Amino acid sequence: MPDRVYLDWNATTPLRPEARTAMLAAWDLIGNPSSVHAEGREARRLVEEARAALAAAVGALARNVIFTSAGTEANALALSPGLRGPSGGPVGRLLVSAIEHASVLAGGRFPSDKIGQIRVTRSGVVDLDHLKAQLKGGPSALVSIMAANNETGALQPVAEAARIVHEAGGLLHVDAIQALGKIPFDIKAMCADLATFSAHKVGGPKGVGALVVAEGLVGLEPVLRGGGQELNRRAGTENVAGIAGFGAAVTTAAQALPELAEHMATLRNRLENGIRAIEGATVFSDDVERLPNTVLFTAPGLKAETAVIGFDLEGIAVSSGSACSSGKVQPSHVLSAMGFEPAVAQGAVRLSLGWSTEPDDINRVLEAWRKLGNTLLRA
Amino acid sequence: MPDRVYLDWNATTPLRPEARTAMLAAWDLIGNPSSVHAEGREARRLVEEARAALAAAVGALARNVIFTSAGTEANALALSPGLRGPSGGPVGRLLVSAIEHASVLAGGRFPSDKIGQIRVTRSGVVDLDHLKAQLKGGPSALVSIMAANNETGALQPVAEAARIVHEAGGLLHVDAIQALGKIPFDIKAMCADLATFSAHKVGGPKGVGALVVAEGLVGLEPVLRGGGQELNRRAGTENVAGIAGFGAAVTTAAQALPELAEHMATLRNRLENGIRAIEGATVFSDDVERLPNTVLFTAPGLKAETAVIGFDLEGIAVSSGSACSSGKVQPSHVLSAMGFEPAVAQGAVRLSLGWSTEPDDINRVLEAWRKLGNTLLRA
Repeated sequence: MPDRVYLDWNATTPLRPEARTAMLAAWDLIGNPSSVHAEGREARRLVEEARAALAAAVGALARNVIFTSAGTEANALALSPGLRGPSGGPVGRLLVSAIEHASVLAGGRFPSDKIGQIRVTRSGVVDLDHLKAQLKGGPSALVSIMAANNETGALQPVAEAARIVHEAGGLLHVDAIQALGKIPFDIKAMCADLATFSAHKVGGPKGVGALVVAEGLVGLEPVLRGGGQELNRRAGTENVAGIAGFGAAVTTAAQALPELAEHMATLRNRLENGIRAIEGATVFSDDVERLPNTVLFTAPGLKAETAVIGFDLEGIAVSSGSACSSGKVQPSHVLSAMGFEPAVAQGAVRLSLGWSTEPDDINRVLEAWRKLGNTLLRA
Repeated sequence: MPDRVYLDWNATTPLRPEARTAMLAAWDLIGNPSSVHAEGREARRLVEEARAALAAAVGALARNVIFTSAGTEANALALSPGLRGPSGGPVGRLLVSAIEHASVLAGGRFPSDKIGQIRVTRSGVVDLDHLKAQLKGGPSALVSIMAANNETGALQPVAEAARIVHEAGGLLHVDAIQALGKIPFDIKAMCADLATFSAHKVGGPKGVGALVVAEGLVGLEPVLRGGGQELNRRAGTENVAGIAGFGAAVTTAAQALPELAEHMATLRNRLENGIRAIEGATVFSDDVERLPNTVLFTAPGLKAETAVIGFDLEGIAVSSGSACSSGKVQPSHVLSAMGFEPAVAQGAVRLSLGWSTEPDDINRVLEAWRKLGNTLLRA
């Protein structure tokens, strides 16, 4: 689609050229990685190279990387009762922050009466005092806190949460899907026990994710059972080409990170300054550290669904929240958890940038706003 | 790898050119199918076209097709306690044939004390009398019988089983992963309530599968929860390119089927005649209807692992059973269920053919056997 401006990178990114190359090469291998013949071994080699690449990018050991079909499956696999590790467990309950992705809020294999929520502040940051209070008494908890929120971009105090959780004998899962490639993320530095990633948020293909666990973590109950793939932790023939694409994308993303973050932040700040010129405009979570690529904003009278359609007609792809829930009528659970009224939440528009975002894209969005603004705010 | 002969098509197939073309086109779409903007709608369109293609190929309605990450996940999703439909249910227990794939034997969401097995004959065909006996008494059963076995190729009496199961108020799941593209399969003609498929067995990519259900089936409990994808039956961002490749592959496979089946059967019969010339050679399930592409054989003294390596060194890829279990030391559960001793089962070699198999490939296998035979049979 020529002349379009794509500002919905938190929903999904284009494929990086390096991922395309890796996937094209994988297409020429016809073997099943579980087969012992040369064709099978070639396919196996690609999977193991990608495993090493992801492990290197996030500070883990290759044997602790489990490839899945997406971030959703990785989150489902992570949330496993009975997990234990050097830092704590076995876990008998789950505490999730109120702003987690729907796949984490679903709770994995924990029964609903064993799932609690941790509050967030009005800035969209996990309330560590509430976490401490929730951890008191009861069985050891698995705590799930995302590294960065997909809607507001707000960074979460993951390393500090890990210390608190471990002191209480629990374990920490970090959904790092939005963080990967946008801010540095190292599972050891964060002291996370489990972390999840998704290929299509970093220039890899849709349909691939990974759960990465800390060394010594045991008790992970598979979601998919059958064949012995992924060291018996995830059955099913591997998405060889997709995994190879993920490996290539993550390596490129890691190399690009410092410069890319600066590039995105510069453009994001310019975009945000333009938005702030709107009478009464609010940028959510703007008083806390955020991803360098995300702006979630509203203005009095703005209706997100109308705005998304209006921008779309002007050739600009933006979002009214996360793609996974954009079909739903309910307002964002993230803004609700931050204490905003449904009317405010229904007016929130998300603009998210990526590596191919150019200064002219920002100009075009601000121009479209100047054209649409009055109509949208009257609506 | 030039000059190799690939005879392990039941493990996985090469990509069909039509699948490549569809996937390349999908790579150029950057949207998430859950997004409402033009980029999202374009991605959604590809997914829905593939859904219609699979539905058309297997006699289902598009709304009853649920895309998954592989056959394993499709089987896990199918085996859901509480299913009910026009033919029976709600199901409270599971009966699986003893020759099912490992992902079916794992039992999905049924507790192990609610899972029973159905015997098979020495020819590797489900014993319908045993099925009838097992269905008597107890709660309604979900019965899982594959359309064709992955190791022997033996076709199963699915339509007859459906009648028996429905008379007893139960439901039938058919794992049609090996059948698709090799024999006609129509979910309505088979009277199956659920059927599973895998892209990479028909020239689509690894990492995509589907569960197809009969109209009116309800009570399917998702395996992956979170976003509302696949009409709330399977959360997670869709593998758009993979799904598009699956759709293209299945359409091509359906068109190619009658001729391809004849092509494969002709070559398979020539291969089999050569094998029968081996002193004491046994071709399993050769007294029943089989897939046109599969030969599972043994000979006195043959050790499958040694044979697979021997053939591999001669440039020929063959298998010692299913790829999912070929890493394991145990003999094939399929041959065990057919009443063969472990020593026999450990000597079984599988040769499976596909659309690019040529007469010369058969010559080369038989030539390799003439060269290796004495050594392999002495070993």
